[in-house]
Formats: sequence, structure tokens, C-alpha cells
Amino acid sequence: MESHSAGVSTLIRARYSETDQMGVIHHANYYIWMEAGRVDLCDAMGIRYRDLEKAGVLLAVIESGCRYIRPVHFDDHVVVSTRMSKANARMVTFAYDLSVEGFPVATGETRHIFLNRDLKPTRLPHRYWPVFGL
Amino acid sequence: MESHSAGVSTLIRARYSETDQMGVIHHANYYIWMEAGRVDLCDAMGIRYRDLEKAGVLLAVIESGCRYIRPVHFDDHVVVSTRMSKANARMVTFAYDLSVEGFPVATGETRHIFLNRDLKPTRLPHRYWPVFGL
Amino acid sequence: MESHSAGVSTLIRARYSETDQMGVIHHANYYIWMEAGRVDLCDAMGIRYRDLEKAGVLLAVIESGCRYIRPVHFDDHVVVSTRMSKANARMVTFAYDLSVEGFPVATGETRHIFLNRDLKPTRLPHRYWPVFGL
Amino acid sequence: MESHSAGVSTLIRARYSETDQMGVIHHANYYIWMEAGRVDLCDAMGIRYRDLEKAGVLLAVIESGCRYIRPVHFDDHVVVSTRMSKANARMVTFAYDLSVEGFPVATGETRHIFLNRDLKPTRLPHRYWPVFGL
Repeated sequence: MESHSAGVSTLIRARYSETDQMGVIHHANYYIWMEAGRVDLCDAMGIRYRDLEKAGVLLAVIESGCRYIRPVHFDDHVVVSTRMSKANARMVTFAYDLSVEGFPVATGETRHIFLNRDLKPTRLPHRYWPVFGL
Repeated sequence: MESHSAGVSTLIRARYSETDQMGVIHHANYYIWMEAGRVDLCDAMGIRYRDLEKAGVLLAVIESGCRYIRPVHFDDHVVVSTRMSKANARMVTFAYDLSVEGFPVATGETRHIFLNRDLKPTRLPHRYWPVFGL
Repeated sequence: MESHSAGVSTLIRARYSETDQMGVIHHANYYIWMEAGRVDLCDAMGIRYRDLEKAGVLLAVIESGCRYIRPVHFDDHVVVSTRMSKANARMVTFAYDLSVEGFPVATGETRHIFLNRDLKPTRLPHRYWPVFGL
Repeated sequence: MESHSAGVSTLIRARYSETDQMGVIHHANYYIWMEAGRVDLCDAMGIRYRDLEKAGVLLAVIESGCRYIRPVHFDDHVVVSTRMSKANARMVTFAYDLSVEGFPVATGETRHIFLNRDLKPTRLPHRYWPVFGL
């Protein structure tokens, strides 16, 4: 299903350690930031991601992608807007828009499957369906 | 053009610091490993990446993506097979196959544009065309 | 000289990517957090670190150390208290106390020398002396 | 006791992602490299670190430190020489010398306590004493 969640915004201040010698933020860090957005979205959807894991529901990334629009610099204030774009009992997709001072700097997407404690693919337990809008 | 380069293989030993609390390698690290593969491919194509940068030719990532097939664990020996899949005077695309003990664990792709010292998009200088099979 | 600066506090939310397979935050990340604290302290002392760098004054780490007191977990809210413990025209030392919910989790220290644009050791230009309490 | 182990050397090729906008390797990465050295030393002492963990013996870092002598650059071939400098049934200390092309670039030290599966401090089980020279 298409999610109707409005999404959440996460503010990230780009770290010095995240720059590379090109003088901009290294592209792999955007995935770290998207993850921070995802954690915030879970919070907003009603469950702390760490409680979800403790309850034995893990979200394993099966696909990730990012388009880089403008470079991001050290100490930039990056807003990561995260929303759930698709979800069913086995899989969930998140979409991300990253911006700095209102200008889009990147868009991304990650797809996840639900795993149980043994890291085996599983169906999301019913009690969590409302969280994911199912 | 489609590249006919046979590609190169890079051996990566998965680091402890690259694991996460799920007990597997965190997905963002695959992009770091692909970059290591890219650097090796440049070497194989006849130019050290660091010399290319010193000469004022930078490769900025404009798109990256990865599909995760099997989890990778700490101390696994990961083989990153890197090849150039497309190249023209403005842009180059690399494709990656990652495997552990012969089993595919991930595939990825990154697209890059050439930048000059001022980080402005530029055409690849002619003297580097042979390196990129142009 | 001993600094009389009261220091600043930086709030860090421990990231999933910062965990390792032991289920806690990997020890190298504490240095990243201390750096975030340092950047905030510069702000509080009256100069954005990125402006300092643009002006050609770089702070190169020559020594770093950390004692780990309690493990930190994913999503913990870590408070990094940063203060300047020593400074002269060539060198500056920062000290850090990290805590989670009021409990100390680590202490650290970093020593830095001032470099100019050419990455050569230099004396701090006079106009920045007040910033560093000289 | 003082260890008589001769130590091991680990070759690390500095990664692009490990650089920062100062154009050199970011200081936190040295701790990652030391960890790689430690894993190799365990191998040389007769046990894969990952098997040690699977057997329920974990090495938690309680202190880490590094002195930076010369900057390290992207694609430098860094040799990490690792040795055990002290060990008893509760604690082990490793010392590291890092060099590039024969020139020392850094020295470091990490101290660890042994933890059991529940992450509680423990005495090293007797069967592993020979590994640690006890």
C-alpha cells in the first residue's frame, strides 16, 4: 500500500569527519543520515526503533540508492525528510529528501525486509501493523 | 560507450568496526568497499586515482545504489569485482559485484561526473580518454 | 595557560551505524563525538570552526585519548561536555566528559597544533588570541 | 606480564572515505586500523578473533590513545605493527606503531578487559591463557 504518513524531518549537522579531501561530505554518509531519518520516522509512527529490535523485529536493508544533487559541506544543517512510501507484511520502503537551507541536495530510497531474531525473513507481527499503516 | 574492460577484483577483509548490532556489516560500508574497487580499477586502467585528482580531474558521485543479497560478517573476505559499464567525456558509470567465498553478496552501481579543481562539471581532458576507453 | 572557559554541552543521539556487533557503540566513534563538541565550543568561543579554516587556521590533532567507563547504546542521548584545558599560540588542548542520563560514560582529551593553509605548524594569528583566551 | 610476542604487521591502504577536508586521513580512523592490527595479532597468536567472540570471550576497549606524528594521505600504504604489551587474566594491552614507507606516522595503545556473553567483566578462561602468553 501507499503510505499516507506525512513523514518527519530530521536535522543533521554535517560533521567534519564526514568530509573527504574533495572538501565536501563523502557520499556514503548520506545513507547514515537516511538511517537517522528512518529512526525518527519510527518514533513518529509510534515505536522506538530500538524497542522494535528488542521485540525481535529487525529491518534489514535489501536495497539502497541515492541521487546527489548539490554538494553538502561541513557544518551545513541538513534536513532529512523521511516518509514510508510502501509497506506490506514482508517489506517496507522509505523515501528521503535531503535539503540544505531549502535547497534539495539529495534524494534517496531504501527497501527493507522484516527479519526475526534469527535474522530470518518473517512477516511483520500483527500488533505492529498499525505502526506501518497496514 | 560500453566498456570492454575486464574489470578488477579487490579483496576486502570485513572490519569489526564495520559491523552493527544486527551482527552483520552495516549497509553503508558497501559503498566504501565499492570505492576501494574503483580506485583499484583506475590503477588497472593505467592511472592512480590520487594522481588523477592531483592533475585536477575529480570524479564526483552523482548516483549510487546497492542491492544486498546475503549478509556479510566480520572477518569475511569480500571480493569486489569492479568494471566500468559506461563512459563518455562527461560521465562514467561503474558496476560492482561483491562476493564472499564465491557466493554473491551484493551488486552495486555508481555514476560520476568529472569535475575540475573548482568542483565545476567539466569534460575529461583528452589525455585521459584512453584511460577511460574513449 | 589554564582556560577559564566554562565549556559547552553538545547533545548527540547515538546512531545505529555507530554500533558494532558487541551491541554497543564502537569505541572509535567517541572521537567523532568529541570533534562535534569541539566545533560547538569554537562556536561558543566566538568563531565558527569552518570560518577559522577558511581563514587559513587549521587545528591538527597530534594526540587523542579516551577512557571508556560505561557502554553506550544505540539511540542513547549522549551529552558531550567540552572545554579548553590548555592553550598557547602554538597548541591547544581540549577535554571532554561524556555522559548518558547523568551517568559518566567516557572522558577524553585531544591535543592540537595550529597549521596554516600549507599544513605547516604556525603560531595562531593575533586576531584569534581572544577566541582561545590568550 | 610483559609479552614476548614479536608482534605482527598489517598492511592497510588508506581509503578515500577516510580522508577529511584537510586533505589527510581523519584521526579517528587510526583506531580502526589498530583494530585491524589487533585482529591480525589474534590470528598470529593462534585464534581468530571471531572464534574467540563466538566462544563467549569479548575484548572491550576501556582505554585508547594515539599520537600522530606525520599526516597520512589517501592511498598511502600504512603498516600497522601490533604487539601485546601487557596481559593478565582480566586485562590486555596492545601497542601499535604505524608507518608509511618506513617513516613512523603514529603510535597508539589500547587497553581491554575480557567480557563474557552478558558483557560482564570476566577472567579469561584457562584454555585461552596460552594464546595471551599467560
